[in-house]
Amino acid sequence: MPVRVVGFDGDDTLWHSETRFHVTQGQFRELLQRYVRDADIDALLAATEMKNLSLYGYGVKSFTLSMLETAIELTGRRISTDDLAVILGWGKGMLMEPTELLDGVEETLRTLSHDHDLLLITKGDLFDQESKLARSGLGDLFLGVEILSEKNVDSYRGVFKRRGIKPEDFLMVGNSLRSDIVPVVELGGRAVHVPYQVTWQHEHVPDDQLPKQGWRRISSIAELTAVLDEI
Amino acid sequence: MPVRVVGFDGDDTLWHSETRFHVTQGQFRELLQRYVRDADIDALLAATEMKNLSLYGYGVKSFTLSMLETAIELTGRRISTDDLAVILGWGKGMLMEPTELLDGVEETLRTLSHDHDLLLITKGDLFDQESKLARSGLGDLFLGVEILSEKNVDSYRGVFKRRGIKPEDFLMVGNSLRSDIVPVVELGGRAVHVPYQVTWQHEHVPDDQLPKQGWRRISSIAELTAVLDEI
Repeated sequence: MPVRVVGFDGDDTLWHSETRFHVTQGQFRELLQRYVRDADIDALLAATEMKNLSLYGYGVKSFTLSMLETAIELTGRRISTDDLAVILGWGKGMLMEPTELLDGVEETLRTLSHDHDLLLITKGDLFDQESKLARSGLGDLFLGVEILSEKNVDSYRGVFKRRGIKPEDFLMVGNSLRSDIVPVVELGGRAVHVPYQVTWQHEHVPDDQLPKQGWRRISSIAELTAVLDEI
Repeated sequence: MPVRVVGFDGDDTLWHSETRFHVTQGQFRELLQRYVRDADIDALLAATEMKNLSLYGYGVKSFTLSMLETAIELTGRRISTDDLAVILGWGKGMLMEPTELLDGVEETLRTLSHDHDLLLITKGDLFDQESKLARSGLGDLFLGVEILSEKNVDSYRGVFKRRGIKPEDFLMVGNSLRSDIVPVVELGGRAVHVPYQVTWQHEHVPDDQLPKQGWRRISSIAELTAVLDEI
């Protein structure tokens, strides 16, 4: 059965996101190593982020607040105000970075938009995501934008209901098995997994918990047009 | 013509919000006065918030980041790491506070929900707003929730389109003339202004820019049922 509506994840599916977090995290590690030589800074930052997730949610502002908290705790409050100001500045820098599209995204979206309704379905910070979409220049190709605080069976069901989409007419494209593939296939939709070079630990799904069918994997979004032609 | 859909603002219309910002801001002022005796701390914080608005958007996380920035700058980086940790903790405290409903809200929503579709239309941080709604216990009374990064003619038009609402069937209830009244009346909808005890400077509208008709003011949301009966 042909697909009518194609949903796209944003971060690390259409544009680079994890990369900017990784670069900043590298700078953070270097800065903190001047205070604490032997700590596993990445693990401690990740633990702070997970602890704060239910309070802060996703996004750059949450990440910045968790970096500040980790820096203060890990150094036993010895970190200087100057260095905390540097961290605060990194957060702003991340929010100001241009939206850098992945290879093949623009052409693929332009082609698909001719005979499909395209939706952007992403999680993260509302303000930051809308700003990234605006700067991407792709806004006009999407029929609608859904920014969700979590991507799970309930939130996708909500999108289907709000927009009158039947799961069998829907295909989701994204880099996260946990957020883009598993819940959509569970609801009876189809999905295409486009892995990104880096995936956040939190988003991994053990192989035996993956759906047996209803989805496939491609190595670049440029292959998507051919996949949709096949279906 | 009767109203079919009633939209409600959240912050300071259904639940207290500005109060928690004011309390924290009072603590912030006291803390910084130990470093700088004569500065107009409130004005400087407000200026930082406005400067950061296009980058951070609204909400507690943005407010926390702006407090940290103001504290560092205003003290010429003399503020201690301990005190910055205190400010970071205030932000978390605000996000954990229970949702405190305004008087009359629950009864009014329960009554109106019998013969109207109720929408929550609010701006701010997606994660924080969903969490407040969940903790309010009112979630089930709303047909839908729209969290917007800005409330203006374009974003209300988007809500009307997404949900198939005719402006003439719609009435918006809120405490902000700028965000809840002016754009809705401009689109041909109706509006009811329920002023809150404190209004953020940014939300003021000069009298001569207010619409001449299409809206009215009540002093408590408890009067809303009678207003809708009249229409």
